[in-house]
Amino acid sequence: MPTAPRVIVEVMLKPEILDPQGRAIIGALGRLGITDVVDVRQGKRFEITLDGALADASLDDLHRVAAELLSNPVIEDYELRIEA
Amino acid sequence: MPTAPRVIVEVMLKPEILDPQGRAIIGALGRLGITDVVDVRQGKRFEITLDGALADASLDDLHRVAAELLSNPVIEDYELRIEA
Repeated sequence: MPTAPRVIVEVMLKPEILDPQGRAIIGALGRLGITDVVDVRQGKRFEITLDGALADASLDDLHRVAAELLSNPVIEDYELRIEA
Repeated sequence: MPTAPRVIVEVMLKPEILDPQGRAIIGALGRLGITDVVDVRQGKRFEITLDGALADASLDDLHRVAAELLSNPVIEDYELRIEA
């Protein structure tokens, strides 16, 4: 039985954008005595399960969704990949 | 020159926990005419950059951080992996 294809979209702030959540985590780590962490970036991860096979049209749609709905292209980059 | 090791922590709601953000995204997709998506789950992704090599002690620390600081073990699962 073929499993439904799953698409993973990862959205992270662009490298040049300051990440206050990440900075807060570095601060918390320091207070826990963990000082070998030099950077933390926090982003979003979406697991999208499709009904049936992944058509080219669907993939184009998903790229549009990732670029316009799941991320803010002004400050974020996304990566989209297909899991079998 | 060796690059600093990077640790990726992915935090997702446990499968049995309802994901209202994911449901909202499915609704938005339907209004855009994309109807072949059966499930969307939204989670968090952390990119942690370390200073120098990754010692076993650091890895234990990072698992503790992922389990207690970056995720809520009551409702979330985490995955931790090392990128070269």
